[in-house]
Amino acid sequence: MSGDIVTAAVLVIGDEILSGRTPDRNVNYIAAHCTRVGIRLQEVRVVGDAEAAIVEAVNALRERYTYLFTTGGIGPTHDDITADAIAKAMSVPIDHDPRAVELLHAFFARRGIEATPARMRMARIPRGAELIANTVSVAPGFLIGNVIVLAGVPDIMQVMLDDVTAKLRTGAKMLTATIQLFRPEGDVADIFATHQKKFPDVAMGSYPTFAEGRVSTQLVLRSTDSALLARAKDQLNDALRARGLL
Amino acid sequence: MSGDIVTAAVLVIGDEILSGRTPDRNVNYIAAHCTRVGIRLQEVRVVGDAEAAIVEAVNALRERYTYLFTTGGIGPTHDDITADAIAKAMSVPIDHDPRAVELLHAFFARRGIEATPARMRMARIPRGAELIANTVSVAPGFLIGNVIVLAGVPDIMQVMLDDVTAKLRTGAKMLTATIQLFRPEGDVADIFATHQKKFPDVAMGSYPTFAEGRVSTQLVLRSTDSALLARAKDQLNDALRARGLL
Repeated sequence: MSGDIVTAAVLVIGDEILSGRTPDRNVNYIAAHCTRVGIRLQEVRVVGDAEAAIVEAVNALRERYTYLFTTGGIGPTHDDITADAIAKAMSVPIDHDPRAVELLHAFFARRGIEATPARMRMARIPRGAELIANTVSVAPGFLIGNVIVLAGVPDIMQVMLDDVTAKLRTGAKMLTATIQLFRPEGDVADIFATHQKKFPDVAMGSYPTFAEGRVSTQLVLRSTDSALLARAKDQLNDALRARGLL
Repeated sequence: MSGDIVTAAVLVIGDEILSGRTPDRNVNYIAAHCTRVGIRLQEVRVVGDAEAAIVEAVNALRERYTYLFTTGGIGPTHDDITADAIAKAMSVPIDHDPRAVELLHAFFARRGIEATPARMRMARIPRGAELIANTVSVAPGFLIGNVIVLAGVPDIMQVMLDDVTAKLRTGAKMLTATIQLFRPEGDVADIFATHQKKFPDVAMGSYPTFAEGRVSTQLVLRSTDSALLARAKDQLNDALRARGLL
């Protein structure tokens, strides 16, 4: 299956991201993880803790991509409405899941924590979902259809992502070659555009930085075909050298 | 106009964000800025450097919110297609804008930089747009209809955002009150849910952290009405104290 294209979207759920109170710390992690395992992240959305917005985004994204990862909104407080919104989006019932109840009861008993109704909300899982292990704080994520529901707290999200990845289909890995120039990107834009036309199947992007007062540009080439990528990089190097740019 | 609700979305444009190569550094900045000036950020999307994806997102978001901010894709290289995609989305012509051409020519002349066709692509501006000043590297952003097109490089994005904000309508400022507890959020979830029912017009969120091995929870209350917010905060403090949680 390594020639397959497997796509994904991420839906970040949380008022705190939209208000600017909290910077998202999950998108870049999931993006890099997807690239590493052979899943192409195609879109990200962020919506607030509002059922209608979550339902609409879940349905738009799960239909369009192989997988949809969500982060946030699966804790014990009243603003944690992700599990219920996912159930609504997918038209399945939701209730306390016996497997999740058992996990939470055992964890709470060991720690002497009271199993309040609010805490037991974290055992609400849409019917038909597989649980995703949370080795940090036990309350599970879940996988239902092609939707993967992860915590918003980065440490917990990351262990859940590791757990679920073994269950996912992955495709050809996107490989990257980078050429760094200490030049503004305007100096190489014409050569780079010509090179893109010559290698239409290699995705090419140019990224300027102005770090420490020094202008530099990274030319990034991406393809799943390592031989093609090497050829494209070599020829770009040659073209840049011929113009004295490298 | 201070009672008005003014909404916004952000569209981040760039393959490098989706591949995980580059973490976005603009969304949180724009989100906090919007909150500060009285604009409510309601949605964020990230799409790649693909015309169809940009056009679709621009049209979905500009119709739904008061303003749409975009970041990225306005540089000199072939993968910078934002200005053309915006023109296409809004069905207006695009060409080299005489105002932008003049700015770039003057800047390039001062610095002894050649005005290559690639560099002059940065003067392509959809017809009818107002320019947004770029005091860092001159190539302007623009405002057309309710769409605000900003650079992706954070330093440049930030000066453009400052420049354009004076031209935007803003509404009532969202105020925030925070109560921090050194307790897991499960301990306060029931009280907090009851409190939310008592103050349905105050948005309430609970944010757990596990920093430095210490569990803490921030209870955040948000409203545009300072008196209501103060009352909600005081009564929540009282309720937490009565249960020995504060």
